[in-house]
Amino acid sequence: MTQLYAVRMDVALPPDMDPAARDDLLAREKAYSQRWQRSGHWPHIWRCVGQYANLSVFAVDSNEQLHQILWGLPLFPYMGITVTPLAAHPSDIAQDPAQ
Amino acid sequence: MTQLYAVRMDVALPPDMDPAARDDLLAREKAYSQRWQRSGHWPHIWRCVGQYANLSVFAVDSNEQLHQILWGLPLFPYMGITVTPLAAHPSDIAQDPAQ
Amino acid sequence: MTQLYAVRMDVALPPDMDPAARDDLLAREKAYSQRWQRSGHWPHIWRCVGQYANLSVFAVDSNEQLHQILWGLPLFPYMGITVTPLAAHPSDIAQDPAQ
Amino acid sequence: MTQLYAVRMDVALPPDMDPAARDDLLAREKAYSQRWQRSGHWPHIWRCVGQYANLSVFAVDSNEQLHQILWGLPLFPYMGITVTPLAAHPSDIAQDPAQ
Amino acid sequence: MTQLYAVRMDVALPPDMDPAARDDLLAREKAYSQRWQRSGHWPHIWRCVGQYANLSVFAVDSNEQLHQILWGLPLFPYMGITVTPLAAHPSDIAQDPAQ
Amino acid sequence: MTQLYAVRMDVALPPDMDPAARDDLLAREKAYSQRWQRSGHWPHIWRCVGQYANLSVFAVDSNEQLHQILWGLPLFPYMGITVTPLAAHPSDIAQDPAQ
Amino acid sequence: MTQLYAVRMDVALPPDMDPAARDDLLAREKAYSQRWQRSGHWPHIWRCVGQYANLSVFAVDSNEQLHQILWGLPLFPYMGITVTPLAAHPSDIAQDPAQ
Amino acid sequence: MTQLYAVRMDVALPPDMDPAARDDLLAREKAYSQRWQRSGHWPHIWRCVGQYANLSVFAVDSNEQLHQILWGLPLFPYMGITVTPLAAHPSDIAQDPAQ
Amino acid sequence: MTQLYAVRMDVALPPDMDPAARDDLLAREKAYSQRWQRSGHWPHIWRCVGQYANLSVFAVDSNEQLHQILWGLPLFPYMGITVTPLAAHPSDIAQDPAQ
Amino acid sequence: MTQLYAVRMDVALPPDMDPAARDDLLAREKAYSQRWQRSGHWPHIWRCVGQYANLSVFAVDSNEQLHQILWGLPLFPYMGITVTPLAAHPSDIAQDPAQ
Repeated sequence: MTQLYAVRMDVALPPDMDPAARDDLLAREKAYSQRWQRSGHWPHIWRCVGQYANLSVFAVDSNEQLHQILWGLPLFPYMGITVTPLAAHPSDIAQDPAQ
Repeated sequence: MTQLYAVRMDVALPPDMDPAARDDLLAREKAYSQRWQRSGHWPHIWRCVGQYANLSVFAVDSNEQLHQILWGLPLFPYMGITVTPLAAHPSDIAQDPAQ
Repeated sequence: MTQLYAVRMDVALPPDMDPAARDDLLAREKAYSQRWQRSGHWPHIWRCVGQYANLSVFAVDSNEQLHQILWGLPLFPYMGITVTPLAAHPSDIAQDPAQ
Repeated sequence: MTQLYAVRMDVALPPDMDPAARDDLLAREKAYSQRWQRSGHWPHIWRCVGQYANLSVFAVDSNEQLHQILWGLPLFPYMGITVTPLAAHPSDIAQDPAQ
Repeated sequence: MTQLYAVRMDVALPPDMDPAARDDLLAREKAYSQRWQRSGHWPHIWRCVGQYANLSVFAVDSNEQLHQILWGLPLFPYMGITVTPLAAHPSDIAQDPAQ
Repeated sequence: MTQLYAVRMDVALPPDMDPAARDDLLAREKAYSQRWQRSGHWPHIWRCVGQYANLSVFAVDSNEQLHQILWGLPLFPYMGITVTPLAAHPSDIAQDPAQ
Repeated sequence: MTQLYAVRMDVALPPDMDPAARDDLLAREKAYSQRWQRSGHWPHIWRCVGQYANLSVFAVDSNEQLHQILWGLPLFPYMGITVTPLAAHPSDIAQDPAQ
Repeated sequence: MTQLYAVRMDVALPPDMDPAARDDLLAREKAYSQRWQRSGHWPHIWRCVGQYANLSVFAVDSNEQLHQILWGLPLFPYMGITVTPLAAHPSDIAQDPAQ
Repeated sequence: MTQLYAVRMDVALPPDMDPAARDDLLAREKAYSQRWQRSGHWPHIWRCVGQYANLSVFAVDSNEQLHQILWGLPLFPYMGITVTPLAAHPSDIAQDPAQ
Repeated sequence: MTQLYAVRMDVALPPDMDPAARDDLLAREKAYSQRWQRSGHWPHIWRCVGQYANLSVFAVDSNEQLHQILWGLPLFPYMGITVTPLAAHPSDIAQDPAQ
C-alpha cells in the first residue's frame, strides 16, 4: 500500500568545497534522485524559490523504505530534512466519491 | 503562465463553536476548495497526519490570483497560512530533456 | 506491514471548562485510547513529567490509519500534536541478526 | 505580467576570507545586482540598518525568473534568503480607482 | 531629512467580531492609511500573499513620527508589528554616482 | 526502582571526517549501545525517518545513571540531546487495574 | 534514592479572574507548596525577577513522584512547566572527595 | 550599591476592554512609573517604535527591589517582561579612568 | 534632530584566534567606540551580565548615520546585531510638561 | 547584600580539540569553579542530565561581581550562558515568618 510523505530538504554545502568533488557529488545526487523518480517513489520534486532547498513528495510502501531512500541521498550529510507524513484530505476531489 | 506554490494551512476552530455554524462553515469550505480543484488551480491537497492542517499545491497565474483564492477561503479567519513559491527543480525528470 | 510513529500530544483544556463536561470528555478519551491499546495499535503511552502531555508510540498499517485514530481522539480539538515517523535503528538488538 | 516579491538576504562571509577574493566577489555581486536593477527587475534594494542584510523588492514574470536571479547571485552560497510573494493591497492608493 | 523603515503588520481580528463594527474599523483604517500615503509618508504598501498581513515602507522624518503614525492605526490593537530601519544600499543604482 | 526517560539524539558528524576514524567511532557507538540494550537499560531505540537522529527510551535507576550512560556515548561530542522524564499514564492499560 | 529536578513554572492567570476565586486558589497553592517544602521534597523555590514564574528544585524518589506533586498543584491548569532532570556535577565540591 | 537592569515590557490589553477601566488602569500605571522615575530608580524609559512596548533601565539596590517594583506595576498582569542584568562595559568612557 | 536607537551586539570571536590579532582588534574596537561616545552619538553602553554582549543606546541624526557607525565597528564581522528604534515614552518625566 | 542568580551554561568544545589542551582547560575550569564554591559565591552547581550543560545558582553582591566571575571562567569562550536574576518567593518557607 503506497503512502505519501512531504519532505523538505535544505542543503548547505561548504562554499569552499573542492569544485570537482562538488560536481561529482551533485551528479551522483541527480542520478540517484532521478532513479527513484522513474521508479515512481518520488513523484514530485520542486525547488523552493530563492533557497538551496526542495519540497518533495514521496510515494513509498513504508516509513522504512522512505528512510532508506533519504539516508542514501549523496547530499544527505549536507542536508537538514523535515518529514511530514500525509493522508488523504476529505476535500480532495480525487478521494471524493461524490465527484 | 502557470506558477506553483506550496501552501500549508493550519486550522484552529474554537472547540466550543456552535455545531450548526461549524458544519455550515466546513461545507462551504469543502465546496469552495473543490471548485478550485476542478478548475485545475488546486492540483494537490493532502492532510498532514495527526493535525488539523493540510499541505496544498496551487497552480495559478500569479501571486495575485493565489492571494484571492486563499483570502476567499471560508476558513481563512481561523487559519495560519505559510506560502512557499516553487520553481522547477533541475533534477525533475519532467523537466529534464535528457530523460 | 506495521509501521511505528512517535506522537507527542500536548493538551490544553480551558481551566474554566464545565466540570461535568470535562469528566465526560476525559472518560471518553480514556476508553477510546484503551480500545486502541488493546487492539495493539497503541503499544506505548507515557506521561511527560510535569506536563499535560503524553509521548505515545503507535503501530499501524499506514499514515492513513494513524490519522484516523488521532483525528478521532475526543481530546483532539484541545491538542497540539507532533508526529515523528519511525524506522528500525541499525543498532537495535531486536533488528540485529548478529545478536 | 509582472509580479512582486519581497526578499530579505542575510549575508555571512567568513571573517578570515582572503581579502582579494572577497573584494572580487563583492564587485561581481554589485555588478550583477545593478544589471538586474537597470533592467527593472530589482526596483528596490535597501540596507537593513546595523546588519549585513538587505530588503529587496523584485518585479519579475514568474517564480522561475525570481529563482534564477537569486540563484545566480555571486553571494548566494553565503546567504540566508527569505522570499515573501506580494500582491496588491486594497488600501494602496495606486490600486484604488476611487483615488 | 526623510528616513525609510520597512514595517510588517500582521492583523488578527476575532472571527466572531460584530460585522458592523468590523466594517467601520476597516473603513477607518483604509482612510487613515490612504491619508498618510497621499502625504508621501507611506510610499509602499503590499499585501503578503495568503496572509492578513502587509509589508509597508514608510518615509518619515524620525522614529517619533513613525511611531505616532503606527500608534494611530485604527487596527493597531489587533496588530503584531515589526519595524526594520532602512539605509541606502551601496549597490542601489539610485545611490550610485557611477550610474 | 526503574524510571523511564525518552531521549532524542540528533547526530551531526563533520562530512569531511576521516572515513576510518568515522567507522571506528560508529562501531564503538553500536557496541556501547547494544551493551546497554542487552542489560535492559535501553529498551527502545528507533530511527527518526529521514534524519541522523534516534528516539530512545531508557529504563534506569536514576537521573545519575542515565547521565553516565549518555555521557559515555562515543558519539556524545557530536550530539544534540533532549531528555524527557516519563511517568505512568493514567490511561495505560498496563497500569490500569480495571483492565 | 533522592533525585533532583529543576522545574520552571510560568503562571498565566486571566487578568479578569474573580478576585475571591483567585485569592482562594493562591492560598491553596501556597499551602500545597509549603507542605512539600516542609517534607523536604521541594528544597528550593525562587521567584524569577519581573515575571510571574518560579525556578524550583525538587528532591524526590522518582519521576513518578515529581509528576504527582506537579500535577497536584492548584495552579497547574494555569502553568507552563519545564522539567530538567539533574545529576551531580563533577566540579561540585559537595561531591568531590578531594575537597 | 546601585545596580542596573534593562527591562523590556510588552503590553497586551484586550481590545474590547471597558474604556473607563482602561483609562483608569493607564493613569495608575503612569503615576506609578513616574513615582519611581522621580525617585531615581527608573532612570530611562523609551517607547519601542511601532509596538505597545517599552525598553527601560532600572537603577536599584537589588534583584529583590527590582522585582517588587515590576510586580507592583498596575499593567503587570497584561505584560510580557524580560529582564537583562547589566554591568559596566570596559569601553564605557564613564568607567574608563584613562578618559 | 537626534534620534535614539537601542542596539544589542552579541560578539562571537573564534576561541582559537591569534592572541595578537585579537588584542589589536579589541583595542581598535575600544578606541572606535570611545570616539563615538565622546562625540555624544553613543550615550550608553552596558555589558549584559554573563555574556559577550552589550546593550547600547545611540543618539544619531538618522538611520543612515547609525548604520555607518555600526558597519564601521572593527568587531562587526563577528557580531550579531539587533536594532530597536526608540521614541519618547508618554510616561517619561523628562517628556512630561506636567512634571 | 547577597543576591541570587540562576545561570545555565551550555558548553560546546570542538570535538577535535587537542586532548592535552582540553584536559588543561577543564582542570583550570574545575579549580576556578571550586574556588568560588568554597568562597560561598557559587552555592549550587548541578549537571543537566544528558547534556554538556550545568544549572548553577550564584550568591553574589552585585550584577558586576557575577559578571566578573562568569567572564573569568576558562570555558567562557566555549559557553552559551543565560542568566536569570532571582528574588525571594512568597511561598518559600525560609522567608515566611508564619512558618
